[in-house]
Amino acid sequence: MFGLAPSVLLAGTRRPWREVDRMLKSGDALGRLSVDDLPTPALLVDLDALDANIAKMVAHCKSKRRALRPHGKTHKCPEIARRLIAAGAVGACAAKLSEAEAFSRGGINGLLVTTAVIGQHKIERAVQLAQLRPDTIFCVDDARNIAELDDAARQAKVRLGLAIDLYVGNRTGIPVGQPAVELAQRISRLKNVRLAGLQAYAGHVAHRTGFEARRELSRKAMESAIGTRRLIEASGVPCPLLTGGSTGTYNIDCDLEGVTELQPGSFLFMDIDYARIGGSDGPVYRDFRHSLTVLTTVVSKPSATEAVVDGGLKAFSTDKPFPPEAKGILGIGFSWGGDEHGKLKLDGASQPVSVGDRVEFVVPHCDPTVNLYDRMYCVRGKQVVAVWPISARGMSQ
Amino acid sequence: MFGLAPSVLLAGTRRPWREVDRMLKSGDALGRLSVDDLPTPALLVDLDALDANIAKMVAHCKSKRRALRPHGKTHKCPEIARRLIAAGAVGACAAKLSEAEAFSRGGINGLLVTTAVIGQHKIERAVQLAQLRPDTIFCVDDARNIAELDDAARQAKVRLGLAIDLYVGNRTGIPVGQPAVELAQRISRLKNVRLAGLQAYAGHVAHRTGFEARRELSRKAMESAIGTRRLIEASGVPCPLLTGGSTGTYNIDCDLEGVTELQPGSFLFMDIDYARIGGSDGPVYRDFRHSLTVLTTVVSKPSATEAVVDGGLKAFSTDKPFPPEAKGILGIGFSWGGDEHGKLKLDGASQPVSVGDRVEFVVPHCDPTVNLYDRMYCVRGKQVVAVWPISARGMSQ
Repeated sequence: MFGLAPSVLLAGTRRPWREVDRMLKSGDALGRLSVDDLPTPALLVDLDALDANIAKMVAHCKSKRRALRPHGKTHKCPEIARRLIAAGAVGACAAKLSEAEAFSRGGINGLLVTTAVIGQHKIERAVQLAQLRPDTIFCVDDARNIAELDDAARQAKVRLGLAIDLYVGNRTGIPVGQPAVELAQRISRLKNVRLAGLQAYAGHVAHRTGFEARRELSRKAMESAIGTRRLIEASGVPCPLLTGGSTGTYNIDCDLEGVTELQPGSFLFMDIDYARIGGSDGPVYRDFRHSLTVLTTVVSKPSATEAVVDGGLKAFSTDKPFPPEAKGILGIGFSWGGDEHGKLKLDGASQPVSVGDRVEFVVPHCDPTVNLYDRMYCVRGKQVVAVWPISARGMSQ
Repeated sequence: MFGLAPSVLLAGTRRPWREVDRMLKSGDALGRLSVDDLPTPALLVDLDALDANIAKMVAHCKSKRRALRPHGKTHKCPEIARRLIAAGAVGACAAKLSEAEAFSRGGINGLLVTTAVIGQHKIERAVQLAQLRPDTIFCVDDARNIAELDDAARQAKVRLGLAIDLYVGNRTGIPVGQPAVELAQRISRLKNVRLAGLQAYAGHVAHRTGFEARRELSRKAMESAIGTRRLIEASGVPCPLLTGGSTGTYNIDCDLEGVTELQPGSFLFMDIDYARIGGSDGPVYRDFRHSLTVLTTVVSKPSATEAVVDGGLKAFSTDKPFPPEAKGILGIGFSWGGDEHGKLKLDGASQPVSVGDRVEFVVPHCDPTVNLYDRMYCVRGKQVVAVWPISARGMSQ
């Protein structure tokens, strides 16, 4: 009844915790550690899969002659931003100002802040960021906010790059067409801001199921943005940038003339949600590999067909209507067991599961899951090869 | 069209950000700051409401002559644990070992770790924690794990207090009755562990809607635990502790002879979920006040009836099937706008909402929302009076 499963006997390297802790904190000789040495729940990144995903997206954008500025809200990790830039990206998007500040502290240039910077204090901070990283671009959609940015930039003797955020059917932004043209002209008349271009993020398109349906919807959203860019340039205001797109539309938006830059994020990690939207070649979207998982430990086994792992609402994001999926073990059902636990149904499990065993899960939604962790453990096979701080975790301000 | 709403004109104290930032970091003269000076999204705690909630729960347990060991997984904040102990609590529960370690670093005694400590490394850490805080109690439900704990305790020359985790219809634990009695006897035969008592947490009962239904379900769960406690004592093994209960059952479990201690958490903050379960006096549970909110800022207004705030999936937990509720403004509909944004429908709003305005929300579920933030801003009215680090945030290991 209390027998020891083989995976438990083999677990870890049998080093004492003090030594493992020291190795994890110092980074010394990490390659000698196994994933089974990690305290769970732990966020794992499969570096082979991550590298393959980066290489594929970079090659795609290069072949289509579009810039790539991957969205940092997905990974919140300066080390990943650095790898992307080394591979060919022009910089990193940041969802919020504080996220951009964290990337700046990590040495990242080419920042695009995709949420408007609103209010006195955030404008002061934006100006300070621009003094340090003059190529930073801030999204705007409100004339008063633009006037305040211009005024703060004048006082600080910097010139701020702005991108007009277009409403393309979802969330934030100014309507496409004439309202956007007027905002562009307004920017062009101010001395301390300059129009870098347009942002058109169609969040409602990114996760639309079915490749053809997604293509139609994305084309409609992006063509209104492309038309607006033409109108702005026809009015005499240069508008070099049109940035947008997502992991769901990376191979759609690049075929539209006038989209100059892609800002996908989830392709780095993939998740269950993106796998479900369907690809250009079939019902499962598999252009990129799942590189992100959460490793858990079985902490209780109340009956022969039930087990409980130590990952719950605080270990996985829960915004999708489906649960995490066990990796490597078939037939395991997962249901939420509160803040700290996941309940497993083992009736159809392809192998025995005992207290102390480790179960790894692919996550429903990568971005908000990453935001729950302070670090990601990079692995190749069972070997831990690096620990990367998620420096912008919690930076939603 | 771009007019300035009165609330924006009055916002904040007009101090520069550098000064506000310094005050927030140092804690100097915080009372001079307004909530409108805080960077959003911000987690707010209304101290008047928090203090009232603490006083009410402490008085209740005192009148019923039960110990109170509130669950720290709700607040993850050593300052709140200290306040509870100062008011009369015997200690703090911690969901996981790393959470208990964080409370220990914050000077908290009387820790009860409610999830079993599984595997070589966590056992080593548990022993170290017990060396520092000898009154710590660890939950167990597995004979092999108990043998390993005894062995590690022997090597470290400490004696570990254990509570048997009972399966009372939900999640973890050993079956009540004979299996639990055998585990108690096993513990009593070992030299380096001692039986502190039993834990019976019925998570499926806590949120059951309707007071009478909840009372029946909780009585059933707890009576099986009380019976098990009697069986253990009848077998000659002292079993002084029976801990359990929740905010949903605090006024139910105290009426059962044999429950010695309550471990509620959410009563500190309350949330929409608990308000919905119904109280002993009507369809809304209002024994405790809502003290926890998230403050957001309107960052875009794409049309007259739509606004977007800067709080989304990373600012609120999303495990409940209902969204955050605006506080102080009636008729605002909230829907998720992705990782970083919330979409507001303003058709029925009781006041105008403009870019730059601040909107405060009561949260659907308090525990996993707190876990998204590094600090809570304590307010009385509009005044910021303290900033408390959420030191155990992310400590789910």
